[in-house]
Amino acid sequence: MQKQFDELKTRLAEINDLTAAAELLMWDEQTHMPPGGAEARGRQIGTLQRLAHEKLTDERIGHLLDDLSQTMGDLPYASDEASLLRVTRREYEQATRVPGDFVSQVAGHTSATFNVWTKARQANDFAALRPYLEKTLELSLRFAEYFPGRGEAIDPFIDQSDYGMSAATVAALIEELRAELVPLVHAIGAQPLADDQVLWRTYPEAAQLAFGEQVVRQLGYDFDRGRQDKTFHPFAARFSINDVRITTRINENFLSEGLFGTIHESGHAMYEQGVAQALEGTPLAGGTSAGVHESQSRLWENLVGRSRGFWEHFFPALQASFPAPLGDVSLDTFYRAINKVAPSLIRVEADEVTYNLHVMLRFDLERALLNGQLAIADLPAAWNARMEADLGLTPPNDRDGVLQDVHWFSGLIGGGFQGYTLGNVMSAQFFASAQAAHPEIPAQIQAGSFDTLRGWLTENIYRHGAKFTADEVVRQATGARLAIAPYMAYLHSKYDALYNL
Amino acid sequence: MQKQFDELKTRLAEINDLTAAAELLMWDEQTHMPPGGAEARGRQIGTLQRLAHEKLTDERIGHLLDDLSQTMGDLPYASDEASLLRVTRREYEQATRVPGDFVSQVAGHTSATFNVWTKARQANDFAALRPYLEKTLELSLRFAEYFPGRGEAIDPFIDQSDYGMSAATVAALIEELRAELVPLVHAIGAQPLADDQVLWRTYPEAAQLAFGEQVVRQLGYDFDRGRQDKTFHPFAARFSINDVRITTRINENFLSEGLFGTIHESGHAMYEQGVAQALEGTPLAGGTSAGVHESQSRLWENLVGRSRGFWEHFFPALQASFPAPLGDVSLDTFYRAINKVAPSLIRVEADEVTYNLHVMLRFDLERALLNGQLAIADLPAAWNARMEADLGLTPPNDRDGVLQDVHWFSGLIGGGFQGYTLGNVMSAQFFASAQAAHPEIPAQIQAGSFDTLRGWLTENIYRHGAKFTADEVVRQATGARLAIAPYMAYLHSKYDALYNL
Repeated sequence: MQKQFDELKTRLAEINDLTAAAELLMWDEQTHMPPGGAEARGRQIGTLQRLAHEKLTDERIGHLLDDLSQTMGDLPYASDEASLLRVTRREYEQATRVPGDFVSQVAGHTSATFNVWTKARQANDFAALRPYLEKTLELSLRFAEYFPGRGEAIDPFIDQSDYGMSAATVAALIEELRAELVPLVHAIGAQPLADDQVLWRTYPEAAQLAFGEQVVRQLGYDFDRGRQDKTFHPFAARFSINDVRITTRINENFLSEGLFGTIHESGHAMYEQGVAQALEGTPLAGGTSAGVHESQSRLWENLVGRSRGFWEHFFPALQASFPAPLGDVSLDTFYRAINKVAPSLIRVEADEVTYNLHVMLRFDLERALLNGQLAIADLPAAWNARMEADLGLTPPNDRDGVLQDVHWFSGLIGGGFQGYTLGNVMSAQFFASAQAAHPEIPAQIQAGSFDTLRGWLTENIYRHGAKFTADEVVRQATGARLAIAPYMAYLHSKYDALYNL
Repeated sequence: MQKQFDELKTRLAEINDLTAAAELLMWDEQTHMPPGGAEARGRQIGTLQRLAHEKLTDERIGHLLDDLSQTMGDLPYASDEASLLRVTRREYEQATRVPGDFVSQVAGHTSATFNVWTKARQANDFAALRPYLEKTLELSLRFAEYFPGRGEAIDPFIDQSDYGMSAATVAALIEELRAELVPLVHAIGAQPLADDQVLWRTYPEAAQLAFGEQVVRQLGYDFDRGRQDKTFHPFAARFSINDVRITTRINENFLSEGLFGTIHESGHAMYEQGVAQALEGTPLAGGTSAGVHESQSRLWENLVGRSRGFWEHFFPALQASFPAPLGDVSLDTFYRAINKVAPSLIRVEADEVTYNLHVMLRFDLERALLNGQLAIADLPAAWNARMEADLGLTPPNDRDGVLQDVHWFSGLIGGGFQGYTLGNVMSAQFFASAQAAHPEIPAQIQAGSFDTLRGWLTENIYRHGAKFTADEVVRQATGARLAIAPYMAYLHSKYDALYNL
């Protein structure tokens, strides 16, 4: 039995190494690679991913899982060993359902679609993309058919990023949340617009990078096991538990982009750095779902990084780093600026309150597409109608509307968005539980100390890696099922005061 | 036939992708990786290399080569197709001779030896390394036994890095060269020592990096298909023909290290960037041997970069970059400083004239070890005796003697050194032929123009990649066999004048 278990771990480590190498090739592509390297790099990443897929779907893995589940069936559910068998079984079954030929066909099609999108988006030309998207939808439905027995066509996609959730549970949560958010957005909209012009002054790049690094180091991001590089679209990347890197985009004319982006990515990275060392080289050595991952980036970015207490500690240092733009600015003015709420067209630029409305729109539209209730041809109109209904804005063109996000143009349609809102909702529930266990956390944040909070998150979330599903993590960490109440309570406690509601 | 050829190319591209990925992981390890990443990175590189080896030794490759050599036997020797079959056959046979278990055993032993060396070198403790080196020698002899029929035990090692050469041919060349170099070193030693103190002033790092980049860009290193990063031990790395990077080490208190190191690595990199695009993704897409590779780094570093004409063009710009240390220095003083000749203990710090004596010493000693004429226990004494004989210096300790180079402590013993001297000899022969074809080259260098020289090198050497052996490249490019006469003529024409010989 031990021998078979060791063989399984050896095989999984090999797959892990191939995947980690592909991740490094992608990180390099986005940070340092000279332009000439693009063509070969695409081929190299494809080769590594294909080999990883071949090795994961090797029938020997299936046999080992079969044998080991019989002999190791009595191990505790939460043990590393039982968790490894459980999660590997899930990944093996997901991977073996989908034929390799289909995976190649999707890769070719989405790569072509992406190339068209990069031009069509600039040209505001949805018509050019329509036939590509129709093919994408067809392929997405075929993908869903490889998983018969799931409720809706979007469910297999949700399984891949947020295992344990379903269209029904996500839609119910979204409906509940939307019913509370839309009135809040409208109430804030009836108040005078917050002034954030202090953020739009000149902030030199080197000082932004240095200040961001100082902040996330203090939060607990470990630079001995990570580093920061510049990129165009920021992301965090893990090559092992002890090498988790963040990337940042600096805008010298808008402070929030780099500053909150850095904190956001360090939240993702602290999660990955906090996984127990014993899980290294296994499928358990990473965050468990898109939602839980996003809960950590958003918790550090918003609940911590956009709180008043946080800036009571950091604002003097920020002023010292940027005397020209901030020397004459009060903490109150700055705090209001970084928490300005206003309906906007672009998801990635949206504030904390309106952000989820952008996400819900996308989830509902892709669900309708996959259920046959919406045609690709009608997608732009449906997008614009929903924007008007929820945010009171109609995009002046498709570039700032349906063409804005890369997701549908670089992969299949489905499952790419719900994690953002699940993460926002979870972030408040986790933070409330941490605070209930350690009421001193807000005072510590005011004093620039984050060890208690990070310790609670590590103990309850980070160290487990992918051992438990999102649902299990939420219940174990908070003692309750996922619920919007803590999130709405957080938003109201903050924004009712800011906007005199 | 075409179908089989395509299958072979597909398999070779996969091997190439795995190797390129391993190269990127190593480049990252030496340039950007945080310290925590080391352990997993070692495992990941090992996995990629093992998979590449497994795929190269797949018997299907042997069958394809057998079939294709029958059906494609009539193709011209110099064609891409015939060259691919020829070089792949050679690599396949080298790889299949050595059992995978042996490769793993060597990897484990050399990794342990390297760890001991890093400490023993500092502690000047040869005794601690002796048992490790004895084991290394035993493994080296076993490696040689996998290639019966070669003349000497060192020959299979020479085949791997300088295919087509042998112990006999290298030794003959070395003996001939030594007979001329030792008197030259002694003659220079009888003259007043050159003064290079201007190089030991303060040269700020950022200005060094910028100046080095400006120089190698002008030489023809393409930054759209490359980049420069800092590292501890400089190297060049290829991830594809269109992504070839250089690394540099800057010493703020000694100008030569960064400046000539950058030119040296750009020579390696221009070779790789100049390979014909049609060879991308095949075993032909790289330099053909250690010697030819070194000929290019040394040609650009020494024959171009340490020439008087080169500095007639660049010295004003260098002075402008470093007004404090160089404002009061004449071109003549600078030219003499960068060409100072003096016997020294450390190979990597040696000047152009004495450098080969360091190399020959190592080649002769490893040949003697492998031939059973020298025991590991007697290696330090043999090293010191030869240093005294050739350079008139006895190392005060083993750290600055037998323990100085990483080669014997990070791999098998054999074949790691002769390429340096072969490269030096070739560099002058290539340069003389380029100049014979284009007598305007020296004047162009004086004017800061390098296109004619680089064009000749590309046409005669770079574009062929690994299609031809070193011997073939030398004969095709120069119309003659490898000979020391051009090299000695170069050294005399330069140093006789500098030292009034």
